Amino acid sequence: MTDTPYYHCNGELVPATEATVSVDDRGFRYGDGAFETLRAYGGTIFEWDAHAERLEDTCEALGLDHGHSRAELAERINATLEANELEEAYVRLSITRGVQSGKLTPKPITEPTVVVAVKPLPRGGLEGVPVWDGPASMQTVKVRRIPDACLPAGAKTHNYLNGILARRELHDADEALVRDLEGYVAEGTTSNVFFVDEEGLHTPTTQVDVLPGITRRVVLECAEEAGIPVTEGWYRPVDVRQADEVFLTNTTWEIRPVALVDGIEFDTDAAPVTALLSRLYAERVEQACY
Amino acid sequence: MTDTPYYHCNGELVPATEATVSVDDRGFRYGDGAFETLRAYGGTIFEWDAHAERLEDTCEALGLDHGHSRAELAERINATLEANELEEAYVRLSITRGVQSGKLTPKPITEPTVVVAVKPLPRGGLEGVPVWDGPASMQTVKVRRIPDACLPAGAKTHNYLNGILARRELHDADEALVRDLEGYVAEGTTSNVFFVDEEGLHTPTTQVDVLPGITRRVVLECAEEAGIPVTEGWYRPVDVRQADEVFLTNTTWEIRPVALVDGIEFDTDAAPVTALLSRLYAERVEQACY
Repeated sequence: MTDTPYYHCNGELVPATEATVSVDDRGFRYGDGAFETLRAYGGTIFEWDAHAERLEDTCEALGLDHGHSRAELAERINATLEANELEEAYVRLSITRGVQSGKLTPKPITEPTVVVAVKPLPRGGLEGVPVWDGPASMQTVKVRRIPDACLPAGAKTHNYLNGILARRELHDADEALVRDLEGYVAEGTTSNVFFVDEEGLHTPTTQVDVLPGITRRVVLECAEEAGIPVTEGWYRPVDVRQADEVFLTNTTWEIRPVALVDGIEFDTDAAPVTALLSRLYAERVEQACY
Repeated sequence: MTDTPYYHCNGELVPATEATVSVDDRGFRYGDGAFETLRAYGGTIFEWDAHAERLEDTCEALGLDHGHSRAELAERINATLEANELEEAYVRLSITRGVQSGKLTPKPITEPTVVVAVKPLPRGGLEGVPVWDGPASMQTVKVRRIPDACLPAGAKTHNYLNGILARRELHDADEALVRDLEGYVAEGTTSNVFFVDEEGLHTPTTQVDVLPGITRRVVLECAEEAGIPVTEGWYRPVDVRQADEVFLTNTTWEIRPVALVDGIEFDTDAAPVTALLSRLYAERVEQACY
């Protein structure tokens, strides 16, 4: 891959430095767009159908009828990977309503903005090294997750200030433990939260407003496969702090151990469930993509 | 003014069609930006100091330290108006954190994105015609306003999906009546709400999460000047529907009468308080800008 990657922007492959949108694009003006973060392993997008389905759900929630089929989007992603000679990559697919006259009420879409951005991301997994520099450290933050009544909880949109404000509160931590308005643990800003105690594996239920992560779902399947008891429930930060193991999941990080929650240390070298699930996850990637 | 206006984009005047930002701009990726909608009358920005102060408050809330003084921003706005030979105009000033590497956690800003977009907007006011086509019609929507605990209520940001979703619910109405999570009337999606009954003028208190509009504040000053009793309180949609007069305020609309709320009609030709406040507002514009 060259120093400057090629992005796919509105139907064309262009050098990333030339991939631009109008300042009148609704994505820029209002964050009026949907996105997915994807990961290519060996040139294959892992869990593409699940990501494509969630993108469709987000677009449905926003009424963002962009007119591109799943196959067309996959083709643009593949073309971008090929142009950059990339097989192991981070991929971000964004779709906005494009430029419309300066009114807030959206009109039917004539020219949506579709962007595929990529960068190299060496494989972690069975034999590689993880993408994260080390285990995560977390801090419970004051800012609360936006409730579903205000923005659909399952929609992955370009409105990300809530997470940015959560991240800005962090001191000596790199991911926020975000609660809902009632104080229940919801998620990280870009990740789902899991913890392990004597009862088994726990993660917040989607009845608390959480983004239903695709990695979260795959990890739950891996746990079921391994016979680990799983509870999706309502938790307080103290439940996380008192756990035996804590980890985070997202498409980029896969499974990332947590070494610190609100100053409480966790020994990530003695985290057998995290290690087992990481191995099972890597095996799934292996089977699906290589 | 030419067909294509000039925008001011990152320090340069460029044709609007060439005013672009990188798809890696945090404004595009995350809606990570602040903005103000301004109005120029006779070449002068009305209530510039108040808008500049609110922009500073928004940037403070987002930790968006862009390094441009109030005077520098005013200069760019004036340069844009002059380049377009515009005296009566709508102006939108946007500032984002610019392009940073692909992480959510913001870094210190090195190159913020600063955009001034303009379009002609003939004066309404004392002798002109209002910018709105006619009185507004409102509908109470299901989507609720994002609480201050999730996004600072007073911050005017590029995260506008909440308002877009509210607008999408409308049938035969052009502005939403948006409630907070407790069901109290907060605001419209781009406007503050006022109503008049036998007790005087009412508008939701800023203790309900509302954006403290600058037009709202000027209208409250006009009401005080005219000796109209004002209550800033907690209201339900039924209070609005049972009022004698209803109107909306924002910088572009100034004071816009409301003819319909949830199917209940209001006679905007028999709305003496709305008419009085509109005249007093126009007089303020006259004194300040001409």
